[in-house]
Amino acid sequence: MAETTGLILVFTGNGKGKTTSSLGMAFRAWGQGMRILVLQFIKGNWKYGELKAAQALGERFEMRQAGKGFIMDNDEEKMVEHRKAAAQALESAKEEMASGKYDMIILDEINYALSYGLVEKEQVLSMVQNKPPQLHLVLTGRDVLPEIADLADLVTEMKEVKHPFEKGIKAQRGVEF
Amino acid sequence: MAETTGLILVFTGNGKGKTTSSLGMAFRAWGQGMRILVLQFIKGNWKYGELKAAQALGERFEMRQAGKGFIMDNDEEKMVEHRKAAAQALESAKEEMASGKYDMIILDEINYALSYGLVEKEQVLSMVQNKPPQLHLVLTGRDVLPEIADLADLVTEMKEVKHPFEKGIKAQRGVEF
Repeated sequence: MAETTGLILVFTGNGKGKTTSSLGMAFRAWGQGMRILVLQFIKGNWKYGELKAAQALGERFEMRQAGKGFIMDNDEEKMVEHRKAAAQALESAKEEMASGKYDMIILDEINYALSYGLVEKEQVLSMVQNKPPQLHLVLTGRDVLPEIADLADLVTEMKEVKHPFEKGIKAQRGVEF
Repeated sequence: MAETTGLILVFTGNGKGKTTSSLGMAFRAWGQGMRILVLQFIKGNWKYGELKAAQALGERFEMRQAGKGFIMDNDEEKMVEHRKAAAQALESAKEEMASGKYDMIILDEINYALSYGLVEKEQVLSMVQNKPPQLHLVLTGRDVLPEIADLADLVTEMKEVKHPFEKGIKAQRGVEF
């Protein structure tokens, strides 16, 4: 099998498709025999659907909760918790990137954690710069920092053109969760 | 369980993430117990990775090949084949939408088939308009037609900001296939 050049991929923008796109890529990579780790930097709870599907695929598709739910930056106490959780997520990310146990690591919503100042930009930049050559690293979340985009091999901006919430349609099973 | 409002979702644009995003959504929906059908309008062969992963999830995650590979519009003989294949895909789509056997149907690259004139716009519009209320219908491919976007509940444009091929990095296992 040809040697893999591990890529740095960024899914950003305000539209739907960032997390689902990284999950779809993980799905494809899993089918290629790769070992996947998804680390969630923000959301409080995994969505039931993806968690169940990941369990069905088994131990090569690992999802790890790190964040503490949606950001409310007017709540100082909550923000302390968020910072702590994001810092822990970052530590896990560094450790697992170096562990050699994974072929693809997805840092879900890390861009959001960065733009909210929950993690240090310098720490993330140095982590990304030190990515092992064969590892695919995926960073998602709106408002990617230009310095991260500079390091990436691929950047896609998911632009919201139209969203069902505008029409008053609430979140639907199988789509939003 | 609350009744599902089936949505019409469009992933378009020139960036990476359209098919992977729909696969990620299928993954999530599968975890919710939904029955998935992915119908491929263009590509000649499924990517090995997603095919393997879909097989692992079993019969509720069905992928069906319809297209005849990449479009070469300077090859008239090939174009006849493409039109035939796309027309067959469209027939399958109509049939399976009406069958009640699926909770989510993904028409992968149908936008591309439309913009290349491989399928009739009127036929696709009437099919989408007649979607059963509970079915989630996902349409992917660049250059979505405005009339399709009008019918959709959600449209995300995947905008290419940066792509590894620009840097001369070839397609990587686990990312492109």
